[in-house]
Amino acid sequence: MITLEGIEGAGKSTQRETLATTLTELGIPFLQTREPGGSPIAERIRALLLDPAHKGLCAQAELLLVFAARAEHLDQTMRPALEAGTWVLSDRFTDASFAYQGGGRGIPAESITGLESLVQGELRPDLTFLFDLPAEIGLKRAKARADLDRFEAETLEFFERARQVYLHRAKQEPGRFRVLDATLDVEQVGRHVRQALIDFVTRMQSSGQ
Amino acid sequence: MITLEGIEGAGKSTQRETLATTLTELGIPFLQTREPGGSPIAERIRALLLDPAHKGLCAQAELLLVFAARAEHLDQTMRPALEAGTWVLSDRFTDASFAYQGGGRGIPAESITGLESLVQGELRPDLTFLFDLPAEIGLKRAKARADLDRFEAETLEFFERARQVYLHRAKQEPGRFRVLDATLDVEQVGRHVRQALIDFVTRMQSSGQ
Repeated sequence: MITLEGIEGAGKSTQRETLATTLTELGIPFLQTREPGGSPIAERIRALLLDPAHKGLCAQAELLLVFAARAEHLDQTMRPALEAGTWVLSDRFTDASFAYQGGGRGIPAESITGLESLVQGELRPDLTFLFDLPAEIGLKRAKARADLDRFEAETLEFFERARQVYLHRAKQEPGRFRVLDATLDVEQVGRHVRQALIDFVTRMQSSGQ
Repeated sequence: MITLEGIEGAGKSTQRETLATTLTELGIPFLQTREPGGSPIAERIRALLLDPAHKGLCAQAELLLVFAARAEHLDQTMRPALEAGTWVLSDRFTDASFAYQGGGRGIPAESITGLESLVQGELRPDLTFLFDLPAEIGLKRAKARADLDRFEAETLEFFERARQVYLHRAKQEPGRFRVLDATLDVEQVGRHVRQALIDFVTRMQSSGQ
């Protein structure tokens, strides 16, 4: 399981393409998915979460909806793929819950860890790309696109707190995380992403996995 | 906080009217609500939960959706009312999660207790009416109504397990629960409900609460 993380405007979508292309070139069968979402019911929960009309949604309900979508995503999409030996490339996963609902909304990390165990058991991503950039730059980029969703309409401070949680988690798990400077130009980031993925695959294959 | 519990076909809706009428006669301001639901976003989650098209919804996602709706219901509806000194009369609450997602779907009670603490803190109902009847009779009544929702379409065994969890909880908390025989005729059940409520109110008032 490979995940992509980062705040809005970090260029995840573009780099997801780079990862998909590289996996294809390496002959690795993979499934591309995203969170919140990734299964029919989870996508309905996503719509509910992103709807700007739901501005008053309380932090706990938001957290529980994210994990409800994740439970469904795992059950319907991720676990069947992983069990069939297919790699899974997910645009966001549980690190985003720690960053957004934890850092952004202030929910204690222990509450999130409890839900992580409940829903995932021992399952964790094998490799996580964190596209890091200052919230100010990310937000400017996101605002240049039309129609902000409920999260994109959040404050600079919200995203800066989310960013700090992402960086903290990357520091705690250096084996899993690859932190990329998302302020660099797209081609440069792309080259780093491609190389990091090739290194990872080479290591996995030489260790016989 | 007064809650009404029981499996499908137990006659909760009719008895909710009896409780509402009695509270009104006693001059007690109250808010009538229901779960899952009770706030605009929680009602959207309810629609998602009851939709018969969502037959494949996994048990964990169901549990988390129920608690997401509950967090929102508490935040938007129940807590503001209770803090203003208004009584709350809710058609179903967390006992239903233990009965349906615990007994019915087999989710361990500890997982539900964890979510209960997360979302409710110390808040628990003061009085709970359990309308008890064999699942076979309840299901027959529910099926006589048109258009079964996703829960009502469940098996006899599912409801019998839910019923047993309800009865077990009532036994563990005799101070909070009033168990009523829902096989009796509506007027008879109504008289018991009315009397139990009057006794409760009298005790509350004489203890100065």
